[in-house]
Amino acid sequence: MRAEIIVIGDELLIGQVVDTNSNWICSQLNEIGVQVKHISTISDDKMEIIHALNLATSRAEVVLMTGGLGPTKDDLTKQALSEYFDSELVFDEEVLTHVKGIFAKYDRPMLPENIKQAEVLKVAEVLFNKVGTAPGMWIKQGNSHVAIMPGVPYEMKYLMEHEVIPRIKSLPGRKELIHSYILTVGIGESFLASRIAHIEDRLPSYIKLAYLPAPVQVRLRLSGEGSNHELLKKELDGFTQEIKDEIKEHCINNNQKSLEETILEEMSALNLSLALAESCTGGYVSHLLTEIPGSSRVFLGSIVSYDNSVKIDSVGVNEQTIRDFGAVSEQTAIEMAEGVKKNLGSDYSIAITGIAGPEGGTVEKPVGTVWVAIAGIKGTYSLKYLFQNSRSGTILRASKNALYQLIKLVREENK
Amino acid sequence: MRAEIIVIGDELLIGQVVDTNSNWICSQLNEIGVQVKHISTISDDKMEIIHALNLATSRAEVVLMTGGLGPTKDDLTKQALSEYFDSELVFDEEVLTHVKGIFAKYDRPMLPENIKQAEVLKVAEVLFNKVGTAPGMWIKQGNSHVAIMPGVPYEMKYLMEHEVIPRIKSLPGRKELIHSYILTVGIGESFLASRIAHIEDRLPSYIKLAYLPAPVQVRLRLSGEGSNHELLKKELDGFTQEIKDEIKEHCINNNQKSLEETILEEMSALNLSLALAESCTGGYVSHLLTEIPGSSRVFLGSIVSYDNSVKIDSVGVNEQTIRDFGAVSEQTAIEMAEGVKKNLGSDYSIAITGIAGPEGGTVEKPVGTVWVAIAGIKGTYSLKYLFQNSRSGTILRASKNALYQLIKLVREENK
Repeated sequence: MRAEIIVIGDELLIGQVVDTNSNWICSQLNEIGVQVKHISTISDDKMEIIHALNLATSRAEVVLMTGGLGPTKDDLTKQALSEYFDSELVFDEEVLTHVKGIFAKYDRPMLPENIKQAEVLKVAEVLFNKVGTAPGMWIKQGNSHVAIMPGVPYEMKYLMEHEVIPRIKSLPGRKELIHSYILTVGIGESFLASRIAHIEDRLPSYIKLAYLPAPVQVRLRLSGEGSNHELLKKELDGFTQEIKDEIKEHCINNNQKSLEETILEEMSALNLSLALAESCTGGYVSHLLTEIPGSSRVFLGSIVSYDNSVKIDSVGVNEQTIRDFGAVSEQTAIEMAEGVKKNLGSDYSIAITGIAGPEGGTVEKPVGTVWVAIAGIKGTYSLKYLFQNSRSGTILRASKNALYQLIKLVREENK
Repeated sequence: MRAEIIVIGDELLIGQVVDTNSNWICSQLNEIGVQVKHISTISDDKMEIIHALNLATSRAEVVLMTGGLGPTKDDLTKQALSEYFDSELVFDEEVLTHVKGIFAKYDRPMLPENIKQAEVLKVAEVLFNKVGTAPGMWIKQGNSHVAIMPGVPYEMKYLMEHEVIPRIKSLPGRKELIHSYILTVGIGESFLASRIAHIEDRLPSYIKLAYLPAPVQVRLRLSGEGSNHELLKKELDGFTQEIKDEIKEHCINNNQKSLEETILEEMSALNLSLALAESCTGGYVSHLLTEIPGSSRVFLGSIVSYDNSVKIDSVGVNEQTIRDFGAVSEQTAIEMAEGVKKNLGSDYSIAITGIAGPEGGTVEKPVGTVWVAIAGIKGTYSLKYLFQNSRSGTILRASKNALYQLIKLVREENK
């Protein structure tokens, strides 16, 4: 089944806003076996809209349109749709009641353009938008189905999840897929591929393996196609287990959660606490963890010891250690990890010290040199990295690798 | 002058990668007065490429194509281009020497597909890619000019800056623009608009004002069009100064730098140091500052005091204060700011404590309640916010607002 996306928005074409909607829509459709073949980003212009719809419906069974709805823009897009689908605009009583309710709740006056938001195409099935004022629409046109959604990301996501995806799933001709995931960290895509090549070679034609890489991690996705879901799931589970056994030390989880979520879950279940001493990563590891709700059950805090005085006074590194070995050294990293663990009273700690650049490198310690130390229940372990990235790339890679070393030690010491 | 962008990449259509290239290209073209009217995102497929080129060149004077070049994909895209432009592929000696040099430098073996990277269309002007192996191309076709660039962001950016934008600038029929910028923080778009309405109303028809909003900030851009650049610049400068005077307390800079860069520059020039005590923002303010090269000249470090024990033991908040007023209170925020300033020995400090959610809110202190305190040379100032956002939205808004309060105090105390 082929899909196309039409994104409407002048703010995208002047480079003011990055379009994250279509990326999210693509990943969601990919999950259910629907191939997106084309994305058209166009301006809030009647002829552009009609032209894009013409092309998309001639090529795809499913067309998803986002943006161009809302109190100030409504008219134009809806006029274009009315013309294209040759259908008049009518007031939808249920939508009008809902929009009025939202304005009453916030005690705001309703303007004529707000009332017009309840206008929908007569031919459309209304996709009721519980989280906003602009309703979505679902329209059958020849062999195509067109979904029209507002561009506000959480409104679009709400409508996709509750209204559009269920409708797409019920269309005939779609291949049904079931998936299995493995998150790997600390192994490059090509090394991973060669490690599991003997398993990949044995996959039957109806099971596909996808590599979804991001910095420091690769998520593997096994997708199976078949009518006997029970049998298929068993087969997928079997291959998933084989891959997990093969790359055990790199396997973080086989759900869709992140490395950070997995660390917090596992440490929380074991009642373990964590503290950090961050130098070159400057608080980024703390941020990655504290973005996750409930992180306070595990994460006590960190000391971002950018200046050496902070390493000495607040973390407890020996001044002589920095003088003898430098701030970026195995010895300093170890003292940072042990110091912050003691001072904050945690079970585990991470310390990171390095040269993020672009300045500050030497021949012996070039830009990208990073020492990571992990202090655990039984001992402290350290590791040196040399990253060849931009400043922000080094910060990201050092942070993710340090978290990977942490989960390895937590698992090792608590198995 | 009308432009279109064609983005080639299967990885975009399955939702694996967010396309940030076209956003960047749009903003660059917008700066020089070229309007992007359409973006087509298509797969690595010969017919799709030819079809997209056909449409784009029929509508736009400038067509920018990214992606689909590189050792593994080269063939397909170049074959499609060869067919579309009816031009054979030839080896470019200069490019071949450059590619060979890159492989020699890293001591890697050259495969036949690497050698093929030096193939270019005979009709094309070669855009020499100093930062990668895939050359760009510039081709005139009827009334259109087509630029073909690799999809790797920094290679694309290099070619845009050094080869493509200069060529677009030299095309006839482009409106020449000059710009002036004002970064405002802490005032919403509509309030800002009404504050400067009397200035905006007086702008001549050849000077346009654009509002470029992002969370907690709005960048204003004045764009002038005219042949007498000296006179125009004087006029732009005049309006820029008027706007700055009108919204003085919200005006951060009138260059294109960020709030964080401006803080670090101004504090560095005054030889002032900074320390942070972050609770609900969990290290994000530290991260925003340390992403900037040279931040160590100002930023000493932070204590991310997530747990109350860290607020007490490492920051120096009185246990009784937390017991009496709670961890999220004006009193705690003030003691955090003063404590971290004293402990880390900085001239200024920021403290942030709040409830980022989704849990932990009460009737008195709902989710989104945040206290910010700034300790300066002459005193400590505090402010309460109530954000109505997601967890990550609250973290972002609390961080940006705290930095805004800091720069206001630094300016006030050091004028």
